[in-house]
Amino acid sequence: MRAEFIGIGSELLTSLKPETNSLYIAQRLEEVGIKLAFKTICGDHEEDIISALKTARNRVQLIIITGGLGPTDDDLTRQAVSKFLGRELIFKEEIVERIAGRYRMKGKEMPEINIRQGFVIDGAEVIYNPVGTAPGMWIEDNGKYIVILPGPPSEMIPMFDFSVLPKLREISPFFISRGILRVVGLTESEVDSSISEISRKANNTTISVLATPGIIDIYIVSRSKKSIEDSLTLLEEVKRKIKEILGENIFSEGESLEEVVGRILRERRETVSVAESCTGGLLSSRITDVPGSSDYFERGFIVYSNISKIENLGIPEDLIAKEGAVSQQVAKLMAKRVREISKTTYGIGITGIAGPGGGSPEKPVGTVHIAIAWEGGEAHTKNYFFGTREQIKVQSAVKALDMLRRHLIKEMKK
Amino acid sequence: MRAEFIGIGSELLTSLKPETNSLYIAQRLEEVGIKLAFKTICGDHEEDIISALKTARNRVQLIIITGGLGPTDDDLTRQAVSKFLGRELIFKEEIVERIAGRYRMKGKEMPEINIRQGFVIDGAEVIYNPVGTAPGMWIEDNGKYIVILPGPPSEMIPMFDFSVLPKLREISPFFISRGILRVVGLTESEVDSSISEISRKANNTTISVLATPGIIDIYIVSRSKKSIEDSLTLLEEVKRKIKEILGENIFSEGESLEEVVGRILRERRETVSVAESCTGGLLSSRITDVPGSSDYFERGFIVYSNISKIENLGIPEDLIAKEGAVSQQVAKLMAKRVREISKTTYGIGITGIAGPGGGSPEKPVGTVHIAIAWEGGEAHTKNYFFGTREQIKVQSAVKALDMLRRHLIKEMKK
Repeated sequence: MRAEFIGIGSELLTSLKPETNSLYIAQRLEEVGIKLAFKTICGDHEEDIISALKTARNRVQLIIITGGLGPTDDDLTRQAVSKFLGRELIFKEEIVERIAGRYRMKGKEMPEINIRQGFVIDGAEVIYNPVGTAPGMWIEDNGKYIVILPGPPSEMIPMFDFSVLPKLREISPFFISRGILRVVGLTESEVDSSISEISRKANNTTISVLATPGIIDIYIVSRSKKSIEDSLTLLEEVKRKIKEILGENIFSEGESLEEVVGRILRERRETVSVAESCTGGLLSSRITDVPGSSDYFERGFIVYSNISKIENLGIPEDLIAKEGAVSQQVAKLMAKRVREISKTTYGIGITGIAGPGGGSPEKPVGTVHIAIAWEGGEAHTKNYFFGTREQIKVQSAVKALDMLRRHLIKEMKK
Repeated sequence: MRAEFIGIGSELLTSLKPETNSLYIAQRLEEVGIKLAFKTICGDHEEDIISALKTARNRVQLIIITGGLGPTDDDLTRQAVSKFLGRELIFKEEIVERIAGRYRMKGKEMPEINIRQGFVIDGAEVIYNPVGTAPGMWIEDNGKYIVILPGPPSEMIPMFDFSVLPKLREISPFFISRGILRVVGLTESEVDSSISEISRKANNTTISVLATPGIIDIYIVSRSKKSIEDSLTLLEEVKRKIKEILGENIFSEGESLEEVVGRILRERRETVSVAESCTGGLLSSRITDVPGSSDYFERGFIVYSNISKIENLGIPEDLIAKEGAVSQQVAKLMAKRVREISKTTYGIGITGIAGPGGGSPEKPVGTVHIAIAWEGGEAHTKNYFFGTREQIKVQSAVKALDMLRRHLIKEMKK
């Protein structure tokens, strides 16, 4: 079965508002084996909405509309669909009663204007809105299905999940299992070429790769007409094959890198402290994005100036003069000293050139030294990152987290 | 004139890839007074592309297509448009020569497959691609215009700007001026209601408001059929009126908050240091997102644990015991001490509860104390922020930057 999404709202045709409802709906449709074949976005104009509906009816069996159900003059979806289908708008007292009830609960009176939301297409099944005022509709018309939902995602999503999805499962019985493998330490093209054969040979399974700075996500969706167990078996088989090839480069099946590192540290009752220069606090900020990170993150120093490296971490002035602030020696000493000062299991030191200025032929923009120190040992990498200042900061923070993760994995195997 | 955007590519119908070319094109079309009336997204299927083209031809005068111009079997835009218009595909040796030249420059041979990109619609004007291999096309057909561009934004944008926009200016002569006013310290609805009358009364001027955590952007676009000066006069008049109402809540006409604060500090040859607890490094990271921030950002302390507050900043243990780490007194002392230690003009201290855990009836999640210290003075705010952990961190960092900005403005007026 093929579907078309119609997003209604003039704001969706400006440069400011990307349309996002269709991304959620595309995923849900995939789960029931329905193919999203078209998306159409049109403004709050009755004739444009009708034009979109006519086109959609000619090419798909399921039409999902979001937006244009509010109470104002701009909200034209109800009347456009009514004209398009040649069906009357019927007033339902109980819808208005429910809306008025919502207002009363807040101690307010329902504005007169909301009465419009009590009108529904003749023959439509009303979809209850648990969050807002506008009800949705499920309409069957000459073997085609039309679903109408409000535009705000906070209303659309629960209505889709609780009311629309069960009906779609009836008309398109499919079983689906989905998974994600998150990868660090490889480029997008390395991941692509490593898994291309698995991807080509996989039956009833779609594999998609999405890259962000430093991290590559592999999305896997398996389908079966037989049973959920069957789709799960397909999924697990593909995951096993990919894991075999990518090994420890896969850091999780959903968790963020900072969550993985944090979880292992907590399990081992270990702690970490950070001394950052070029990342300017980003590594610490990411570590502390995780709720409960105070269990293992002790403190951080943003030693941006040379004098702060000397004063707060005790980096010798002549070492900076001799090797430069951006050097293996300084990164290692930053990691060692922040660990000692903070009395943590691990210390991380980062020093580099985030750009766009400050580069030189020997130390171009993107040169970043990262070091980790622990009792009786240390690790270090010299990296050349590409991109904007912010992308270099992100890649540096990801690399530092990944170095700690790989060290922790080694420790766990001991 | 009305336009339709057609985005071609099956990946644009998945949950992973939002379509973004149309956002850029919508802005450019607005500049020449052309209204984007529809967007259609369809997959890499010839009959679907033709269906989209037929629909578009019936309702708009200008069709802009992106995607499907690559060299593989999946890339069907050329042949679909050819069938739709009933015009042959013509081979242009010089296009292939140019593509082969690009490969030669990299010391490579052009793959056989790229020869396909040498075919263009009969009668089309070829649009040169300065970045990639696929050429674009400008086609006139029975009073309608069809523009075909490659999908990757890095290729589409320069081709649109250099080749398409001048042609659109010829067919739709409009003059436009645009501006942005960035606001901090007010909510979206406060901004909306303050400027709603200006917005309603403004002639040939569109005002849009976009909110992100802590910051509200007001976009203003003025149009004139007469001259660029005329549109600029309209724009400046609306800007003047909004500035009159919102005053110092407007922090810039484009710069980020951290850029504004950084610029003023640099002009005054002043410096800042930061002591963060609940923001975990985010404030320092934002300050150091600005190139050249080492001119005025000296260092930062992420004093996440109580012991780090005591050891690194010398906050008395009994003050924390008596008032709590999240308190006005501790925030003020953090600001004072980090300033003294770092020998900077200003010190900023932030301590709060980012959640989701750690709240109490007296100090609920979102309670954040922010203090700024300088020679002989200090400022403090107690804030209650709403949202997720990350949103609370962002709002705290924005508020701290804004407090420093407002103090700097006062100083400048002295």
